[in-house]
Amino acid sequence: MYHGLIEDKFADECGVFGIFVNNHAEEIEIARTTFYGLYALQHRGQESAGIAVSNGEEIVLHKAMGLVSEVFSNEHIDSLKGHIAIGHVRYSAAGAAAVVNAQPLVFHYLNGMIGLAQNGSLVNSEALRQRLGTYGSVFQTKSDAEIVANLLARYSQDKLEDALAKCMIDLEGAFALVIMTENCLIGVRDQLGIRPLVLGELKGNYVLASETAAFDTIGATLIRDVEPGEIIVVDKNGLRSTQTANFNKSAHCVFEYIYFARPDSKIDGINVYKARRELGKQLAKEYKIDADLVISVPDSGTAAALGYAEEAGLPFEEGLMKNRYIGRTFIQPTQQMRELGVRLKLNTIPELVQGKRIVMVDDSIVRGTTSKKLVQMLREAGAAEIHMLIASPPTKYSCFYGINTSKKEELIANKMEVEDIAEFIGADSLHYISMEGMVTALERNEDFFCAACFSGHYPVAVDI
Amino acid sequence: MYHGLIEDKFADECGVFGIFVNNHAEEIEIARTTFYGLYALQHRGQESAGIAVSNGEEIVLHKAMGLVSEVFSNEHIDSLKGHIAIGHVRYSAAGAAAVVNAQPLVFHYLNGMIGLAQNGSLVNSEALRQRLGTYGSVFQTKSDAEIVANLLARYSQDKLEDALAKCMIDLEGAFALVIMTENCLIGVRDQLGIRPLVLGELKGNYVLASETAAFDTIGATLIRDVEPGEIIVVDKNGLRSTQTANFNKSAHCVFEYIYFARPDSKIDGINVYKARRELGKQLAKEYKIDADLVISVPDSGTAAALGYAEEAGLPFEEGLMKNRYIGRTFIQPTQQMRELGVRLKLNTIPELVQGKRIVMVDDSIVRGTTSKKLVQMLREAGAAEIHMLIASPPTKYSCFYGINTSKKEELIANKMEVEDIAEFIGADSLHYISMEGMVTALERNEDFFCAACFSGHYPVAVDI
Amino acid sequence: MYHGLIEDKFADECGVFGIFVNNHAEEIEIARTTFYGLYALQHRGQESAGIAVSNGEEIVLHKAMGLVSEVFSNEHIDSLKGHIAIGHVRYSAAGAAAVVNAQPLVFHYLNGMIGLAQNGSLVNSEALRQRLGTYGSVFQTKSDAEIVANLLARYSQDKLEDALAKCMIDLEGAFALVIMTENCLIGVRDQLGIRPLVLGELKGNYVLASETAAFDTIGATLIRDVEPGEIIVVDKNGLRSTQTANFNKSAHCVFEYIYFARPDSKIDGINVYKARRELGKQLAKEYKIDADLVISVPDSGTAAALGYAEEAGLPFEEGLMKNRYIGRTFIQPTQQMRELGVRLKLNTIPELVQGKRIVMVDDSIVRGTTSKKLVQMLREAGAAEIHMLIASPPTKYSCFYGINTSKKEELIANKMEVEDIAEFIGADSLHYISMEGMVTALERNEDFFCAACFSGHYPVAVDI
Amino acid sequence: MYHGLIEDKFADECGVFGIFVNNHAEEIEIARTTFYGLYALQHRGQESAGIAVSNGEEIVLHKAMGLVSEVFSNEHIDSLKGHIAIGHVRYSAAGAAAVVNAQPLVFHYLNGMIGLAQNGSLVNSEALRQRLGTYGSVFQTKSDAEIVANLLARYSQDKLEDALAKCMIDLEGAFALVIMTENCLIGVRDQLGIRPLVLGELKGNYVLASETAAFDTIGATLIRDVEPGEIIVVDKNGLRSTQTANFNKSAHCVFEYIYFARPDSKIDGINVYKARRELGKQLAKEYKIDADLVISVPDSGTAAALGYAEEAGLPFEEGLMKNRYIGRTFIQPTQQMRELGVRLKLNTIPELVQGKRIVMVDDSIVRGTTSKKLVQMLREAGAAEIHMLIASPPTKYSCFYGINTSKKEELIANKMEVEDIAEFIGADSLHYISMEGMVTALERNEDFFCAACFSGHYPVAVDI
Repeated sequence: MYHGLIEDKFADECGVFGIFVNNHAEEIEIARTTFYGLYALQHRGQESAGIAVSNGEEIVLHKAMGLVSEVFSNEHIDSLKGHIAIGHVRYSAAGAAAVVNAQPLVFHYLNGMIGLAQNGSLVNSEALRQRLGTYGSVFQTKSDAEIVANLLARYSQDKLEDALAKCMIDLEGAFALVIMTENCLIGVRDQLGIRPLVLGELKGNYVLASETAAFDTIGATLIRDVEPGEIIVVDKNGLRSTQTANFNKSAHCVFEYIYFARPDSKIDGINVYKARRELGKQLAKEYKIDADLVISVPDSGTAAALGYAEEAGLPFEEGLMKNRYIGRTFIQPTQQMRELGVRLKLNTIPELVQGKRIVMVDDSIVRGTTSKKLVQMLREAGAAEIHMLIASPPTKYSCFYGINTSKKEELIANKMEVEDIAEFIGADSLHYISMEGMVTALERNEDFFCAACFSGHYPVAVDI
Repeated sequence: MYHGLIEDKFADECGVFGIFVNNHAEEIEIARTTFYGLYALQHRGQESAGIAVSNGEEIVLHKAMGLVSEVFSNEHIDSLKGHIAIGHVRYSAAGAAAVVNAQPLVFHYLNGMIGLAQNGSLVNSEALRQRLGTYGSVFQTKSDAEIVANLLARYSQDKLEDALAKCMIDLEGAFALVIMTENCLIGVRDQLGIRPLVLGELKGNYVLASETAAFDTIGATLIRDVEPGEIIVVDKNGLRSTQTANFNKSAHCVFEYIYFARPDSKIDGINVYKARRELGKQLAKEYKIDADLVISVPDSGTAAALGYAEEAGLPFEEGLMKNRYIGRTFIQPTQQMRELGVRLKLNTIPELVQGKRIVMVDDSIVRGTTSKKLVQMLREAGAAEIHMLIASPPTKYSCFYGINTSKKEELIANKMEVEDIAEFIGADSLHYISMEGMVTALERNEDFFCAACFSGHYPVAVDI
Repeated sequence: MYHGLIEDKFADECGVFGIFVNNHAEEIEIARTTFYGLYALQHRGQESAGIAVSNGEEIVLHKAMGLVSEVFSNEHIDSLKGHIAIGHVRYSAAGAAAVVNAQPLVFHYLNGMIGLAQNGSLVNSEALRQRLGTYGSVFQTKSDAEIVANLLARYSQDKLEDALAKCMIDLEGAFALVIMTENCLIGVRDQLGIRPLVLGELKGNYVLASETAAFDTIGATLIRDVEPGEIIVVDKNGLRSTQTANFNKSAHCVFEYIYFARPDSKIDGINVYKARRELGKQLAKEYKIDADLVISVPDSGTAAALGYAEEAGLPFEEGLMKNRYIGRTFIQPTQQMRELGVRLKLNTIPELVQGKRIVMVDDSIVRGTTSKKLVQMLREAGAAEIHMLIASPPTKYSCFYGINTSKKEELIANKMEVEDIAEFIGADSLHYISMEGMVTALERNEDFFCAACFSGHYPVAVDI
Repeated sequence: MYHGLIEDKFADECGVFGIFVNNHAEEIEIARTTFYGLYALQHRGQESAGIAVSNGEEIVLHKAMGLVSEVFSNEHIDSLKGHIAIGHVRYSAAGAAAVVNAQPLVFHYLNGMIGLAQNGSLVNSEALRQRLGTYGSVFQTKSDAEIVANLLARYSQDKLEDALAKCMIDLEGAFALVIMTENCLIGVRDQLGIRPLVLGELKGNYVLASETAAFDTIGATLIRDVEPGEIIVVDKNGLRSTQTANFNKSAHCVFEYIYFARPDSKIDGINVYKARRELGKQLAKEYKIDADLVISVPDSGTAAALGYAEEAGLPFEEGLMKNRYIGRTFIQPTQQMRELGVRLKLNTIPELVQGKRIVMVDDSIVRGTTSKKLVQMLREAGAAEIHMLIASPPTKYSCFYGINTSKKEELIANKMEVEDIAEFIGADSLHYISMEGMVTALERNEDFFCAACFSGHYPVAVDI
């Protein structure tokens, strides 16, 4: 099977969801609601999906490889009864694509059962595995959530939230965790809030999710973001919060705004769609191109392209059309089609671009291979000039915080200067938004964000 | 399973593809090329897919329920060897969803084997079945292609193209047919050209398809549209054409331009994307709304919305966000989510619409249920005014030419005046483009099109 | 996948079932009963299964590739409501393994709908296809049932049973047909009764099946065999019979008794198990072997082996053990295991055979390859002598009446004398029952049976 | 789906296989050989299957729910490359039917990777989980193998075989374990040898399996049984053995001989088929019945029935016929068929039993429900007398050593005297072999076996 249609983009690795139902249980149907919450987070992981539900006595789990809609039938959903649920969607790095690595993970330990679902990545996972190993821990998965569970189990004499607070000292990296026991739901966010986690309300019940889009889909409303370093525990007595970060800092992943998150989500106070539009406007302020029309690389570049067009006073056109039926796997194309390549997914409209000077806006460039094919396609369709504008700075550094970037060496911006990239992709010009411009457009200070993939300044130390 | 996410739109019923390879056979890999041709036509039918291939001696067929990417594995493709192929994607009316109705159909008859794939619908199919029945014909499927095959077999003493020409007298309705024998490929279009069929060239070989988008995907180029009433036969001697319509008329389905066809296709000389954009501009000329921004119902309303925005001088925003992971079936939602309904598929961005006077552009309204929910969602997000503009006239009449419209009684425009529809959907105003405006925007005369779904003037007589 | 475990046996090609429910409908649940009837006939065909049900207005069909238990879920069964049903299991010859060839076939024709399921094979099918073709018939399947349907449709001015009687003149070969319309159930047997068909009663309702084992499974009781040339029509007025054979002859397939039918079935007055036991006794009368013990090739040789052991006064042992989990497909074995070959399916017990003089009884030998491997395995286990006794005469001729024999040239008994076969398989001696002995054991006259595979005397003329 | 066809028998819970390839690697194809080894052990577990392979650097695993032939495709097998493999087939108790519980389990721990596959059950698993839990262990499965892995990891400073020897002190119960690291293969048997484990040789390489039938299938030969309490380690230096049981005792599960093991296996020096035959002879010595014929409940009662018939001088007949196409799940039968019940699986032949006094031999009775239906079926077929003879003593006690017996309260022999059971099942008489008779027939001393299910004397203390 052919996976060649996968986008030349950074890939998010997970989405999480959690709910504790105290009220209106019969209306909410917990597993059904979790299903739809996960379905709204499907863009954060398409490889596996899972839901664990507690009925107060035990935790029952169903998970499998596939999309949310493929993994769960009505029969599965009906078999997951209870009042606490967590869910997970996952996109995995190569080699870890096995059901054993699908989440949630559910464990029996001294104090009962515990389920975990995590978005993000620890940077000290190997060290922790080694240390836990000396105490006799064994690991069946490649998931950091298994490390967290083993670590928690070391503190089983403590109350769970105290144990978690102790664990926070050891857990280095980026993580948004939803955890459940038979009797409570817990949300935890790493001490810099690198990965997103939002708290909402559904008919008097607390819900947790990676993005607010999940709330909209199920009819919940946003209360607030879980704070960096915060542990939120929900049980039948309500919600209580523990703050484990004794500093007042954040390093929210800027790429969530640029590409990962759904445009209709609001994360850490920033509306994603508006942010992308502003990035486009800022691009136009930085680079005024003498052009006839603005097009976008759909779907992720469209908001920025609209912003660019508005600011630049140029018409926006849907110059690239996307086939909406892209599946995850395909038969091998012929050699000739492999050269046509990107046309399986994107096509252009010659009548629109012929003889035109075009600004093509995309959110980012990873290896540049898709950009190159798009430029070539537009040239063949008769475009007079093609100016590529990127609504993020050059991505020069790998992410170690739960994002599946290519290795540093594969990132074109790591290897080439901007002019060389322009030549490689065949564009008449190529411009990236400046770091300052990006930060300005997002209306926050630079230290609000983690922008390590652009700057190489890693907010949590990593061994490279 | 829940099918409630299916769009409130007319539904196309089929896409066809055909290819005869005389040159560069090893590069083309006929079944693989047909697969990708069908994949580009997937929007025309998602229920079943099939490919039949002739090696000059016999025709081999594989078809099944599902998307093109689900139906065919590399193994299937490798087993379909030959130099002539036809393919089909199908969306079926209720009750006919069985693999026996999937196309192509392949028959043994007196002169050998014959395969057929059809887009469209005969209006006299019952009469033909009855008539053929008196001669002893039996029917295993609900497909009109089976009628055509039986009719052709009555003329088996004639050359196939002569037999086809005779059949044309009996076949009333809308149809684009690709037919194959062991040795030739045939394309036929009904005498008014209601359903589209285009002829192209791929490395010196002829290809046929419902839309040019299929050509772009496989690297073929458009030669011309098959003409109304034309029979095109391709064999090892090349292409020959027979014209069976002794009048110079057409009735090209106008809904292909409004909704069905891919925007990047060109059908009967009209570029679909540009047509939709012009429809949007024309709407703006007809209805000047005092508004703050223009949004579209994605994806089909976007081109018209961009045209509207440009003509009206209003900013265009992606005010409705689509979940790109809509599957064909889902678990049942809870009652509460059923009310939220459309949010599973579309979501809005409150920051964008709050306090704004909004023009929402869609291509058409069928039953009005989705429009109603979208208006409600925008109101809840704080929109000050919502003006709905439709880039087609009111759809008042059912189609009998291969489109799965609802029954006439279910079409909201058949039952209500425009103001009542506006009230039903909750919009501050509702405007449809005029018939004259539509024709003007498409830059053809009225009699170029079949617009029976708007006007009730059926170009081929139907028993209603 | 590896199909090398398929037995070296003739293969039956189909089983049929039919039921008309007038009484106790709610207890009987027609599709469920048909499912279990087919399940009891599963040995007659493992490739595809199907059930068609009429509710008096229309016939609904479900069929697919696979075992009965794989093809039908509770959901399928629940969707098949009505009072008349027919069912079919199929084993196909190479090349015809496609769902389009699965039965029942259901047709619309001038007089309504008709469904057919057939066991057997016409010898004049090509001539009939050609003749019907000149009248304009087209064929979608390789099934003779499609020929019958087309033929019947020629007589649509007649009552169905009269039409069928007319068809009987044209249909040459071996066939047991169950046919249904919206309102009646029909059973037909070829004029020599080559293929079996039994009539039974279930709570006041008529049932038809290939074998009585299907009756036992559903709790029905045998009324009688359908007679050669008989047409039985069951409708709401009860049962009526038409005899179309104006001679009093039969040619019941003798291989049903030897191998095909379940031992617990009774066909044309002969109990299959007892018949096999008598064949074993007769073998012992014909060939007295000085041996220590008798073993069988399970499962089909066991009854004869028991008869042999009893008559010969020798102990019977389960000297060959069968793996009960043989699936239809397997991964490829290694070369070494391919040589071990038969051990995947059958294994021996050295302690049992060591130093022993063994009589190994099998029902028949087709190509001799399995026999050869079994003899080798027994030798390796230390058997002193191995005498192979076959409970049927040498199979020298192909069957054209619905049995998937190898081609004549592949039948070892067609190519070699008995002594040479013995040498080929490595046995110390090899003996087949005599024709006379076989007939004697079955307690009928020779002309009661079709024994063409042994004698080459074909009761219905064939072009060889 | 309907599981009602599952036999009224004790159920074995697992089969294990292991291989270390030093020689002829290319001929052996390790995963393929393991597949066929497991396939030969399929009767020991039909719910899930798995294979883990080490290439010296890491262990790769594939496992899933289903039969061996369903779980593995050629593609899976080809992806499992290496020189050490272990495999497992599993039948699970209710509630544990999830892929997470399928084996082998593979763990990362301080010293690398380790894979385990177990047949049997610890009696102190809850205590061990509790104790390990206090040290921080967490458990994802219900498998005892996970306990063993956690225990082993506590001793990671020791050499693996020393660690294992230490673990043996803690592991109470019945277990045959095959374990692998990246570099070695280990076989362990509990200190009383309750569960079987045999050591063999395949082209100069060591293999381990639950039964010798696996050796026959792959062409390996038996070296010897692994001894009670023995740890066998195979690595590139060859085989070494450690004996951890400081007493010379055994308690081999007697039910392996009675029912579980394949008749063609040899376990702990006893040939299973011959043992069953001797049990039948012994039965005949103990109970001389004045009867006409002997039949068996196939397949497990047949060997004993043949022994009975020989000793009693009565003819043996296949009076009960088994449908060979029993699947694991079925659609629900109708109520009426539920009453017919057993006929879906077993049918009788009236001609054979009519008026006859019958001895029916079975290996054991669990709840008596199937026996009751068989007696009823034989009576309806006209049997004059039915005497049931059981080739094992009454099963009165539950097994805690890896066998899925019903709860003690559900065992009919626990609740009723023999005469009452006879009355319940409707037999004219019912006789079980005596404990002494059983032991005599098996030609060992009583203390050779574990016969706790008959005697209630548990060789390893259990909390009941």
